[in-house]
Amino acid sequence: MQPRHLSILGVGLLGASIAMAIRRSVSGCSITGYAHRSSTLEAALDAGLIDSGYADPARAVQGADLVVLCTPVSTLAPLLRDISPAVSANTVVTDVGSTKRSVVAAAEEHLPAGVQFVGSHPMAGSERRGLGAARADLFDGHTCIITPTSRTAPEAVASVEAFWKFLGMRTIRLSPDEHDRRLADISHLPHAVAAALVAMQDEASLPLAGRGFLDATRIAAGDGGLWRDIFVDNQDNLLDSLHRFREQLDQIIERLEPERADDLKKWLDTAAETRNRIRGGG
Amino acid sequence: MQPRHLSILGVGLLGASIAMAIRRSVSGCSITGYAHRSSTLEAALDAGLIDSGYADPARAVQGADLVVLCTPVSTLAPLLRDISPAVSANTVVTDVGSTKRSVVAAAEEHLPAGVQFVGSHPMAGSERRGLGAARADLFDGHTCIITPTSRTAPEAVASVEAFWKFLGMRTIRLSPDEHDRRLADISHLPHAVAAALVAMQDEASLPLAGRGFLDATRIAAGDGGLWRDIFVDNQDNLLDSLHRFREQLDQIIERLEPERADDLKKWLDTAAETRNRIRGGG
Repeated sequence: MQPRHLSILGVGLLGASIAMAIRRSVSGCSITGYAHRSSTLEAALDAGLIDSGYADPARAVQGADLVVLCTPVSTLAPLLRDISPAVSANTVVTDVGSTKRSVVAAAEEHLPAGVQFVGSHPMAGSERRGLGAARADLFDGHTCIITPTSRTAPEAVASVEAFWKFLGMRTIRLSPDEHDRRLADISHLPHAVAAALVAMQDEASLPLAGRGFLDATRIAAGDGGLWRDIFVDNQDNLLDSLHRFREQLDQIIERLEPERADDLKKWLDTAAETRNRIRGGG
Repeated sequence: MQPRHLSILGVGLLGASIAMAIRRSVSGCSITGYAHRSSTLEAALDAGLIDSGYADPARAVQGADLVVLCTPVSTLAPLLRDISPAVSANTVVTDVGSTKRSVVAAAEEHLPAGVQFVGSHPMAGSERRGLGAARADLFDGHTCIITPTSRTAPEAVASVEAFWKFLGMRTIRLSPDEHDRRLADISHLPHAVAAALVAMQDEASLPLAGRGFLDATRIAAGDGGLWRDIFVDNQDNLLDSLHRFREQLDQIIERLEPERADDLKKWLDTAAETRNRIRGGG
């Protein structure tokens, strides 16, 4: 989908990167932006990322053929409520949130009949935040997960998939439930684990950190508020992931007995073999 | 210390990288190598990394002013026993092992009086192994931990420190006990955790791995046998690290309750702030 009138609600890292990617490759697409702070709107206007900007999200969606919600996960439900009187029947609405059940449910509750919502999770990002960290190539070669439900019109799914492909992404489809369950394992748990690895260090050990530790904990530098929202929104799945991860740790503890050294090696070799197979889609 | 006759026992990633670094910057240093496999010795000779090579470690240390043990942690004690009849009184012996208590104890037990052993842990490496992964700049800008004891002669410590600095490293001193305790936290635990993060994934989640997961688990691609040896050798400290890490996970689980969301954010923000402060020495 090559949008002619795109509305980007939230012009932080992801929203501004979408605008840059569109500016890079489409002429004749008008982009309207919404931001909570006027300084952000001004920066986005000054950078030529948006053609017009509003502090009122309902105003910013008027006339849009595609609306992309790019604000933090915890703000998506109220934002959907705010825009619902203003979106027209042919508008397709999507988002970039890292969790999908709650936003899909909120969209199905709040948006008027005829307005199609298709959940999206473009798996591209950075530890850095904000418009200043945005890049036109942020999405290139990464995977976007699309989460239609039985109520989503196939044409709307196709439009949203085409939009992300247009920005350089691969797309795959998962149900909102499966998305949140798998992402708890492969994204939210690793973030919690990285933060715990940092938190448990003695101050005097920090200068001994090697490249391995720095790589393993890079994600822990991410914004605490954003991750808090993701963790709370996906609490049930993350709890399940944490419990299964703790079982793995218990198995390591058992295998540290010298007479279990062969098991330990086999387990480490299997993990190494699996890790070497992962190419990664995110 | 600019060695005139260097003996490198084990010409894998670290041993071969030491030889390359010496070749890069010293003329007139003769390098003798030992390797278990004749194919490795031949490759090291063909690459010009060593001037002579032996499958007998005792033969390979004759006449050396500095001997560097570069074989896996589990082989260091038998290797010290093998070379003890052949090392001369003015030889300084060091190693590159990732654990330090056991090798320092084995050296103090096996090496004859007059031969000085100084434990070293150059914190540079790779998930890759072997001579083929060796690089002359492997050590540049990284930290080497030196672990003298009350029995180590100050001149021998100074010589070994000078040797690593000569290869481009910073050096710091820790006791063998403190080394193994801190490295359990900052290196061995992160490896176990990365392997557990990989091991607990469902096969169907692997294509969803993003850059964060790939970074967080990169170290899990390391050789299972080498890490098994490190884990077993440092079992007591690693167990302690795993238990303290599990307490951190329990704290995350508690903070996932919606009414604890502020605590969760504070904890994540503190981890992010700490992570952003770490420059890393390894």
